[in-house]
Amino acid sequence: MANTLKKIAFCLYLALAVLGLQAQNKALVFQTDFGLKDGAVAAMKGVAFSVSPDLKQFDLTHEIPPFDIWQAAYRLEQTVSYWPSGTVFVSVVDPGVGSVRKSVVAKTKSGHFIVTPDNGTLTLIAESLGIDSLRQIDENVNRLKGSGDSYTFHGRDVYSYTGARLAAGVIRFDEVGPALSPAVERITYQPAEFKAGNFHGNIPVLDVQYGNVWTNIPFSLLQSNGIAYGDSLLVRIFHHKKPVYSGKMIFGTTFSAVKEGLPVAYINSLLNFSFGINMGSFAGKHRIASGSEWSVIIAKVR
Amino acid sequence: MANTLKKIAFCLYLALAVLGLQAQNKALVFQTDFGLKDGAVAAMKGVAFSVSPDLKQFDLTHEIPPFDIWQAAYRLEQTVSYWPSGTVFVSVVDPGVGSVRKSVVAKTKSGHFIVTPDNGTLTLIAESLGIDSLRQIDENVNRLKGSGDSYTFHGRDVYSYTGARLAAGVIRFDEVGPALSPAVERITYQPAEFKAGNFHGNIPVLDVQYGNVWTNIPFSLLQSNGIAYGDSLLVRIFHHKKPVYSGKMIFGTTFSAVKEGLPVAYINSLLNFSFGINMGSFAGKHRIASGSEWSVIIAKVR
Amino acid sequence: MANTLKKIAFCLYLALAVLGLQAQNKALVFQTDFGLKDGAVAAMKGVAFSVSPDLKQFDLTHEIPPFDIWQAAYRLEQTVSYWPSGTVFVSVVDPGVGSVRKSVVAKTKSGHFIVTPDNGTLTLIAESLGIDSLRQIDENVNRLKGSGDSYTFHGRDVYSYTGARLAAGVIRFDEVGPALSPAVERITYQPAEFKAGNFHGNIPVLDVQYGNVWTNIPFSLLQSNGIAYGDSLLVRIFHHKKPVYSGKMIFGTTFSAVKEGLPVAYINSLLNFSFGINMGSFAGKHRIASGSEWSVIIAKVR
Repeated sequence: MANTLKKIAFCLYLALAVLGLQAQNKALVFQTDFGLKDGAVAAMKGVAFSVSPDLKQFDLTHEIPPFDIWQAAYRLEQTVSYWPSGTVFVSVVDPGVGSVRKSVVAKTKSGHFIVTPDNGTLTLIAESLGIDSLRQIDENVNRLKGSGDSYTFHGRDVYSYTGARLAAGVIRFDEVGPALSPAVERITYQPAEFKAGNFHGNIPVLDVQYGNVWTNIPFSLLQSNGIAYGDSLLVRIFHHKKPVYSGKMIFGTTFSAVKEGLPVAYINSLLNFSFGINMGSFAGKHRIASGSEWSVIIAKVR
Repeated sequence: MANTLKKIAFCLYLALAVLGLQAQNKALVFQTDFGLKDGAVAAMKGVAFSVSPDLKQFDLTHEIPPFDIWQAAYRLEQTVSYWPSGTVFVSVVDPGVGSVRKSVVAKTKSGHFIVTPDNGTLTLIAESLGIDSLRQIDENVNRLKGSGDSYTFHGRDVYSYTGARLAAGVIRFDEVGPALSPAVERITYQPAEFKAGNFHGNIPVLDVQYGNVWTNIPFSLLQSNGIAYGDSLLVRIFHHKKPVYSGKMIFGTTFSAVKEGLPVAYINSLLNFSFGINMGSFAGKHRIASGSEWSVIIAKVR
Repeated sequence: MANTLKKIAFCLYLALAVLGLQAQNKALVFQTDFGLKDGAVAAMKGVAFSVSPDLKQFDLTHEIPPFDIWQAAYRLEQTVSYWPSGTVFVSVVDPGVGSVRKSVVAKTKSGHFIVTPDNGTLTLIAESLGIDSLRQIDENVNRLKGSGDSYTFHGRDVYSYTGARLAAGVIRFDEVGPALSPAVERITYQPAEFKAGNFHGNIPVLDVQYGNVWTNIPFSLLQSNGIAYGDSLLVRIFHHKKPVYSGKMIFGTTFSAVKEGLPVAYINSLLNFSFGINMGSFAGKHRIASGSEWSVIIAKVR
């Protein structure tokens, strides 16, 4: 009888091992500036599917404005930490296709992997999650077979292929290629800071769908310097340091804290200071955009 | 020998039980007005993937016009019944984010689940499939851990999290939260009816990609009142009861029933009366939109 | 002992057989001109999911311009070969919905399946991969139950349903319906050719996201007739044989071969001759579009 149980246990172990082969597949999440009008993204996914049909493939976005590395960096920052450790992101926003920027895989301190050209895309993730280690993709090994004549579609032939093999467990991280210093390329921008009663920051990105303006000033910085819900705030916006907007608004827990058509400050889903118009578009009305050249100064109205 | 077979059967049962753990995962289908330009939808999916990597995640649409509850209701109506019983839909179109509307999970009489703010989104599903039971989400239990400081992204922290846990079998429906009366919030609109030789109805939505106009008048109402394919029909369109269009058209089984550029009436994929222009845009040409304020009157030309 | 091992082996075989049931599911890849604003694509996926929850469903694109069969043909050509043999594509771009064109499943010589109306969509795949065999869908068998009253949504009720059943192994290819001659409908267009020192070809499609112009002239044709990277080329573009553009450009391995704002010729991901502007839109600047009526003549500048 004990023998029978042992056999059953072993048998179950084998079944589990087979299942385990599947289960070792991690999520593979794509971000590009390719759009979805042509077959480029589908070709990337076909390459990944060919590596392993059991991979779970997802999209972050394919609507990054062409060549906008800053937005690529920001969308990763907004999203990565909501996926489990081990998830592999493939981000292909690359003005310098084929030029000297390196093709890398970054492992964050949180255990996420990001396959990307090292062109600034890792700027914000390096600050928030931290880069644990960085490896350059060895294209002699990690490149789709038969793709050598094509000089332009690294996204499909190198990035998707490598990301899929890493996520599927076909290669380990150390098989990506040689280790590099984890000092990734960074884009410079105005950090969030509090001085002389004013909060300084920049506008990293707009909440495009609703026309809300997001800043990089964390809720905690406001709280530890005397700002609370219900306060009236003076918000000033600058483009290349030239004033573009100045106005007062209530700091509310929800948009419905103010009447339709009125501006309202709030904390967004990244726990950063933001503002918009209840049932309207702040960015559209006041012609506000985003990027490192946009900055804000916030102060409490007393 | 019989013993051996028993062991094998038990072993198979165990293997199946392990597989069953996977198989109990239902589809999770997302609908929002977030668009796909930022990371909001991907963050929702990351939260769901963290709940269970084996969940099958799909998209209904993320292009609902901002805050357009009526369209959210219509897109659910158009789609839900083509998915199997047990499918969990997460719909986040929510002008009153954070305000007093309740966060609920509806179970339809067909066995589908819809996780949504109770703000009118369930209007049409309640009429067609019927609401079997309704529960308010208890956010003390069904909320992503560590998300308590964020007041604005219910879609990710409550709706996606709860939908994923329900679809993955982590919680049962009765663990969502307290039961409510199944009398969901409804948006009022002109119903389909036949009186004095005229068919009355509204234009719930456009077939936007082709510019076709869809009505809420079912094929069966036409058939039982003497309308047949090949009939010539007078179609009149009103906006706030003011006439906008009046014209005759053939009721055809296909668009190719008429020459290019001509209007044609047909039955759409929801089996409702509709009309368009063969190889053209009816809505574009005649500036027709949709919503509860748009109505039609149809009559047979004798 | 040998007996025990046998039992274990058998047991494992059974477990694998159960797993095999899952594993036989192939990828199902959708292409339409429906857009993603309504529930049409989601209804198609719900039907496929109802056929088999284990199917892996993907999107090629749903942004084919309405009724543009040429683009449908080109996007398949661009993508199919990056997916493994056995993958099932469902392509629904169909100006003649319900008219006399046949609903077919094509099996390519590479072992891919394409479910589509036979209206020209298979033009380019027939030339590149070749059609191994063609079957007409027997709608008496391969049609969603209860969909008989709907005359217009073949995409959901016939194409998605049949594609899903084929991909899931519910039906074999020979159960699709009667065999047809593999001579599919073709769209005529200017082929790539070299004569009298000039390369002739057409512009099958634009790289819309970046405004690059793609031609159908293969790299190999250029190479075998004396063109090499670094050459200066004269590029002329014609619309209905009327000259639209004439200019010189360098043939580079990457866009960074030229300064920002300058035109550059390159080989695209399909290994065809293409050109664009480094960090700009060639098509936008010179108002170039694509289709069978657009042609190019390329010559080496000596």
